[in-house]
Amino acid sequence: MRNLRIVPSSFLSALSCLEESESVIIGCPLDLTVTSRPGVRFAPQAIREASWGIESYSPRLDADLEEMRVCDLGDLELPIGDGLLALKEIEEAVRGIVSGGKVPFLMGGEHLITLAGVKGLLDLQPDLVVLQLDAHADLRDEYLGVRLSHATVMRRVGELVGDRLVQVGIRSGNREEWEWGKKRGTFHAGRTVDEELLAKLEGKPVYLTVDLDILDPSVAPGVSTPEPGGWSFDELMDFLYGLRELKVVAFDLVELTPPYDPTGQSAAAAAKILREGILLFGRRNAKG
Amino acid sequence: MRNLRIVPSSFLSALSCLEESESVIIGCPLDLTVTSRPGVRFAPQAIREASWGIESYSPRLDADLEEMRVCDLGDLELPIGDGLLALKEIEEAVRGIVSGGKVPFLMGGEHLITLAGVKGLLDLQPDLVVLQLDAHADLRDEYLGVRLSHATVMRRVGELVGDRLVQVGIRSGNREEWEWGKKRGTFHAGRTVDEELLAKLEGKPVYLTVDLDILDPSVAPGVSTPEPGGWSFDELMDFLYGLRELKVVAFDLVELTPPYDPTGQSAAAAAKILREGILLFGRRNAKG
Amino acid sequence: MRNLRIVPSSFLSALSCLEESESVIIGCPLDLTVTSRPGVRFAPQAIREASWGIESYSPRLDADLEEMRVCDLGDLELPIGDGLLALKEIEEAVRGIVSGGKVPFLMGGEHLITLAGVKGLLDLQPDLVVLQLDAHADLRDEYLGVRLSHATVMRRVGELVGDRLVQVGIRSGNREEWEWGKKRGTFHAGRTVDEELLAKLEGKPVYLTVDLDILDPSVAPGVSTPEPGGWSFDELMDFLYGLRELKVVAFDLVELTPPYDPTGQSAAAAAKILREGILLFGRRNAKG
Amino acid sequence: MRNLRIVPSSFLSALSCLEESESVIIGCPLDLTVTSRPGVRFAPQAIREASWGIESYSPRLDADLEEMRVCDLGDLELPIGDGLLALKEIEEAVRGIVSGGKVPFLMGGEHLITLAGVKGLLDLQPDLVVLQLDAHADLRDEYLGVRLSHATVMRRVGELVGDRLVQVGIRSGNREEWEWGKKRGTFHAGRTVDEELLAKLEGKPVYLTVDLDILDPSVAPGVSTPEPGGWSFDELMDFLYGLRELKVVAFDLVELTPPYDPTGQSAAAAAKILREGILLFGRRNAKG
Amino acid sequence: MRNLRIVPSSFLSALSCLEESESVIIGCPLDLTVTSRPGVRFAPQAIREASWGIESYSPRLDADLEEMRVCDLGDLELPIGDGLLALKEIEEAVRGIVSGGKVPFLMGGEHLITLAGVKGLLDLQPDLVVLQLDAHADLRDEYLGVRLSHATVMRRVGELVGDRLVQVGIRSGNREEWEWGKKRGTFHAGRTVDEELLAKLEGKPVYLTVDLDILDPSVAPGVSTPEPGGWSFDELMDFLYGLRELKVVAFDLVELTPPYDPTGQSAAAAAKILREGILLFGRRNAKG
Amino acid sequence: MRNLRIVPSSFLSALSCLEESESVIIGCPLDLTVTSRPGVRFAPQAIREASWGIESYSPRLDADLEEMRVCDLGDLELPIGDGLLALKEIEEAVRGIVSGGKVPFLMGGEHLITLAGVKGLLDLQPDLVVLQLDAHADLRDEYLGVRLSHATVMRRVGELVGDRLVQVGIRSGNREEWEWGKKRGTFHAGRTVDEELLAKLEGKPVYLTVDLDILDPSVAPGVSTPEPGGWSFDELMDFLYGLRELKVVAFDLVELTPPYDPTGQSAAAAAKILREGILLFGRRNAKG
Repeated sequence: MRNLRIVPSSFLSALSCLEESESVIIGCPLDLTVTSRPGVRFAPQAIREASWGIESYSPRLDADLEEMRVCDLGDLELPIGDGLLALKEIEEAVRGIVSGGKVPFLMGGEHLITLAGVKGLLDLQPDLVVLQLDAHADLRDEYLGVRLSHATVMRRVGELVGDRLVQVGIRSGNREEWEWGKKRGTFHAGRTVDEELLAKLEGKPVYLTVDLDILDPSVAPGVSTPEPGGWSFDELMDFLYGLRELKVVAFDLVELTPPYDPTGQSAAAAAKILREGILLFGRRNAKG
Repeated sequence: MRNLRIVPSSFLSALSCLEESESVIIGCPLDLTVTSRPGVRFAPQAIREASWGIESYSPRLDADLEEMRVCDLGDLELPIGDGLLALKEIEEAVRGIVSGGKVPFLMGGEHLITLAGVKGLLDLQPDLVVLQLDAHADLRDEYLGVRLSHATVMRRVGELVGDRLVQVGIRSGNREEWEWGKKRGTFHAGRTVDEELLAKLEGKPVYLTVDLDILDPSVAPGVSTPEPGGWSFDELMDFLYGLRELKVVAFDLVELTPPYDPTGQSAAAAAKILREGILLFGRRNAKG
Repeated sequence: MRNLRIVPSSFLSALSCLEESESVIIGCPLDLTVTSRPGVRFAPQAIREASWGIESYSPRLDADLEEMRVCDLGDLELPIGDGLLALKEIEEAVRGIVSGGKVPFLMGGEHLITLAGVKGLLDLQPDLVVLQLDAHADLRDEYLGVRLSHATVMRRVGELVGDRLVQVGIRSGNREEWEWGKKRGTFHAGRTVDEELLAKLEGKPVYLTVDLDILDPSVAPGVSTPEPGGWSFDELMDFLYGLRELKVVAFDLVELTPPYDPTGQSAAAAAKILREGILLFGRRNAKG
Repeated sequence: MRNLRIVPSSFLSALSCLEESESVIIGCPLDLTVTSRPGVRFAPQAIREASWGIESYSPRLDADLEEMRVCDLGDLELPIGDGLLALKEIEEAVRGIVSGGKVPFLMGGEHLITLAGVKGLLDLQPDLVVLQLDAHADLRDEYLGVRLSHATVMRRVGELVGDRLVQVGIRSGNREEWEWGKKRGTFHAGRTVDEELLAKLEGKPVYLTVDLDILDPSVAPGVSTPEPGGWSFDELMDFLYGLRELKVVAFDLVELTPPYDPTGQSAAAAAKILREGILLFGRRNAKG
Repeated sequence: MRNLRIVPSSFLSALSCLEESESVIIGCPLDLTVTSRPGVRFAPQAIREASWGIESYSPRLDADLEEMRVCDLGDLELPIGDGLLALKEIEEAVRGIVSGGKVPFLMGGEHLITLAGVKGLLDLQPDLVVLQLDAHADLRDEYLGVRLSHATVMRRVGELVGDRLVQVGIRSGNREEWEWGKKRGTFHAGRTVDEELLAKLEGKPVYLTVDLDILDPSVAPGVSTPEPGGWSFDELMDFLYGLRELKVVAFDLVELTPPYDPTGQSAAAAAKILREGILLFGRRNAKG
Repeated sequence: MRNLRIVPSSFLSALSCLEESESVIIGCPLDLTVTSRPGVRFAPQAIREASWGIESYSPRLDADLEEMRVCDLGDLELPIGDGLLALKEIEEAVRGIVSGGKVPFLMGGEHLITLAGVKGLLDLQPDLVVLQLDAHADLRDEYLGVRLSHATVMRRVGELVGDRLVQVGIRSGNREEWEWGKKRGTFHAGRTVDEELLAKLEGKPVYLTVDLDILDPSVAPGVSTPEPGGWSFDELMDFLYGLRELKVVAFDLVELTPPYDPTGQSAAAAAKILREGILLFGRRNAKG
């Protein structure tokens, strides 16, 4: 039986075991507070499947996932209908990965997982900066009477990291959120990595969270809240390349909602973002 | 402007105001603990839309919804991601309807809403019998660490009504559920209303909960947990007609999951079940 | 270039030219008065495509389309948004086919095309009996202020053929239709060809119109108005075989709505019904 | 029962009653002459549902729908299969809204509704200019023998308003339409509001009709006739902002065809266009 | 990190390692000769995902997969576009499993895999009987010039096992196949396990191949060639239970085509068939 | 019967017979080596259907298909599961068309058909240059053990035409392919027709192959391997217009995969590319 060639079930070329890996991918299929377009729970698996349709080699970076040591742990089996407990499990998983000197790459799930990811890092990285790429401010204080929600997550993160929250690409929010963001100076205008932005980030550990809906819905229609008027794929890629000298210590990619994109282009975009993310940040920022 | 003819947004012919109505339809789009096939939140609206594709007149019953007084309140706007609070709101709504001497017809939503519905009735009807038509026993004590779930709801209901729980059509459960049900005698075998069943129900107020998955998946594929080997549509109809002399004081129809049935046949089945349910039980059991 | 093998675009094995054929298939993609589920216009093409997935040979009839002479004319290009003109064109096409001593097989399109088909035959067959297999009575006098509609078509046909209208399988209608049908005696109860039915049909030229929704929605969900509680596929087949000694001079198959059935089972059912229809009636009733 | 929180069925924040409103939204689900991609009848409801996924606040305009008085009347129930009568009803509805000093916002439906809208305004605004944003000229004199069609509508409008027809974004037509438009000077080149365009519009009452297919199919694939090579979402927004000083007295948004966009991005684009349209023109141009 | 609960990627409860298992599941996603409805390659993964929606416990058999030792090897990665080589790999995999005294459960893939499965067993079981449950005879000698195809597979199998081929449920074939089958006596009439059938099978090693299209398309629409007029789910189950005393040494389940069934009912049916198959034959027929 | 107006089944306005035509369209629905997203076999028919949604007149070129003589032969019926034989048939068809002095326009099917097309031309045009517009290099030497594949096709073509292979738009490949292409100088950078490119092509017969995935997935999501970060539709059009003075003697358009684009925008893009291709190259390069 030793000759059987079996189809891998991991993310593209992420075939290392946990111990030997520098980068660790983990699926966090939380899908609790999304209202009108459910299905973000299917994102990690959709990203894995789409990843095998692109190459492990990046011509732009002249680098190859096959030359790295990446582990895909699979998806966390989260308790259903109990958000607090689910977030706790994600937080613990992140803490474990980071404690091992590895870089976590989280595949959401809804944006709320970022709160867990940040908590899992803060002990080790107390001066952590959170860099959010997103269409929505996510700064409500509560939403339909609930304080833990994809619509409030960055307000909660802000309560943890204070003014070390940087929001890029925001094009939607209610009046209250808009005023909160402007008053605190969290919003970063423009679609490029400029001096002003680098000044905020250089030398600090960065938690990079990418909400797929920063992209225009034409590029990534399969998200839980499509907001017309977003970035092109190349704009996002150039932005990420602009961060390459930074110390990105954790990365998450959230809000892909596969059932709303039968074309699969959203999952393909997510897979390529993740590939470039790992190639950019996966080795450089791992320890040992 | 008085001549504008506007498309109604209610269930078929349910155009009475709350005060004058005997039967009250309300949507309870709870979609919290469903794991692999989300979307039960869209059921009430799908049932409404499908209802206009059938007639208000039932040849079998020789009765017509247009000759009744039915109100469709619309959908409850439930808090998102907080199950306890959502169930409380459903319970209050049911209590309000019943207190007014009207018969509530709940459109789920996941099966967990039945727990709220039963609670809303128990004060007024302390000897309530719960008659469950379902493919699944829903008798787990907990599921993935959670005690409030579509997989545990009838265990919770059983804790409220004791041995006044009757389960019909059950064809799936784990070994523990099966033994629990057999020990308590909750399972009713067969697909007809026989003497044994009537003996349990006659003279008592009945809460009738229909999980659409009692039907074979060929008839109702759009459910959150399709279980092959179920009832035909006519078998279910005959069963309902067999209950016509009973005192059904509340009715719910749960687990329709429209995104998994692009043909719409599941929603059409649900709409027809609800129409017949209202024609059978809506006036007879209303007070005053 | 003489060796190119090109995929045929006709119905299964319907490769004869018009002149030499006994049976003539024609698509009538009228889709004008359907309200909530449009798409019946795509039916003829869907039936053609599905037909190549079944065999030309029928084990039940021990007959083969390849041993017959069948022509598929393609689809009529109907004027858009003008029902009267469209019906006129269908009527003329039917008259032309029948005048040539051939048997027309119409693929709808909505049920309204039957009115045109019947008109096209009445000159030649003044004692024509119309045999309707359908879930819906289609006996309204008008619908939303319009007198030509899929909901009124059989009332209009009845005005042409008087008491020579026989309705089988009807399970839906409003109270007015139900009373009209019962008073006139058009409804035939049961799902088999019995003596009473044969007595009405024997010796007369029969226009057979099959609305696909006579089948249960589990068998044919892709129709414009699915009505739960219908016939199985075998019940319909047995009914058709029961007609084999009759003089069926025209056949139509209507109301398939392909966009509402991504599984294609409805189109496969339609193709098989049409194959058996041609094998049963296509040669026997052609002249010369 | 007074505490029930019910999900609204209107467009986003359009919760005013007719009398107190400045802006009036009305659905006109005409779907009569579309040939190959039906479903434009579902557009108004799809826009309403999508609208709740965006915010009522516009950062670009720093304005909020919640600070306006907007009424959503629902959808007109149009006679089926009778275009003349349907157009008459739309015309009457528009006349009623305008007579009350309110600004109508029509959600199509096919482009033919613009003919009704223009007719409904011409009495009150005899010097009305029609500004059409569209991929297609819609200038045929007839189409498949029919003179009232989505392909002929602007020819008919031109017969009403003479040279007060301005066509922007046109990239498709047959040779005859192209020559007609060039000869009459109706085509406006470019994708911006320039001096030449303003000269034609300033000081006049403007009927603004937006055919969603002016957008590139990547941005709005769910239209009845996708034409590759169109505008980006931001180009369209900038164009609309360029009109903000004009006296737009009526607005329609047509040709969204939801069944052809399962991603919902087309409906989201439509909802955002309508939100910005109401914020730009809804109050300013209402009387009293 | 030891506490992470990760979602399993195997078939339901098939969590044993190869060595300790009695039953071995393997995916054979061959999708080479299917013409009009591709996608059978996705079947094994779809069956796995659907399997977690049913229980591991079978009330009918009073048995539980969790009490067995089952291994799911995953999917073979087959060479693409080279049928001979792909079949060779499947054959080798089956031979390896059987040599280890285990019972193979193959998830197709197209029906052609049965040829490989039979070849992999014949050395060890030279008197193997092949029992085929199928709608189609699959007895063509060639199809479009090709001799290895889903339409010819049972002709090829017949060349290997001679008169030890038994075909049940066949309702479609061309005239040549029909005559071949009748002449050889391979067809078994009826839908039950009767004496005549048992006489052919008792005491012999049986290769049981189930083509999902033996079921009616209403029950399993997601197959590559839906043939109306098939078995109900309960008929198939009863047939399988009727085989329980036989020595079934290998089992395959083929032709599920997930893209043609968005409802997932076909995959659910397949998963339940496979569960019952393992419970019936998985332990009993394993050696040691 | 002479008045029947029948819907054409050809590509838009391609109504000439083979003999009198200058341009010949032929469908080559090869779908053999595509792995994860099958369905390219449906492309030719989808392009035909989409073509009738655009006009035959091109404003940009001021030319009209109706003023040309174009024949659509339909789809080749290829042997199933046998790649070598299928390629041979395509090659023969192309040779036949070219021998008649006509320009072939091939609608794929997978990219492998280009190998057949080139072979069919090389006898007559031994100095043929192959100009490939594509996201992927397709330069592997083998893929999963197979040498004839969509992933290797340009390596095989390169073996036929040597350094007369020009690759434009390539943004994906593995490291080996990238090095092969750079070493041979086959890659052409940029998205415009510049002097360097013209120098390679002028005066030579050009086989132009367009893989639809050169477009960004937002524009053409329905391809077998979507690669984010591609060209806009206008960029591709401008590139094609830049070739207008060249001697393009054959054209193919490959890799459209309709099942993955329910919006139809990919097919619309393909149809428009083909229309412009015929208008640009169909007459100019035909002989006699």
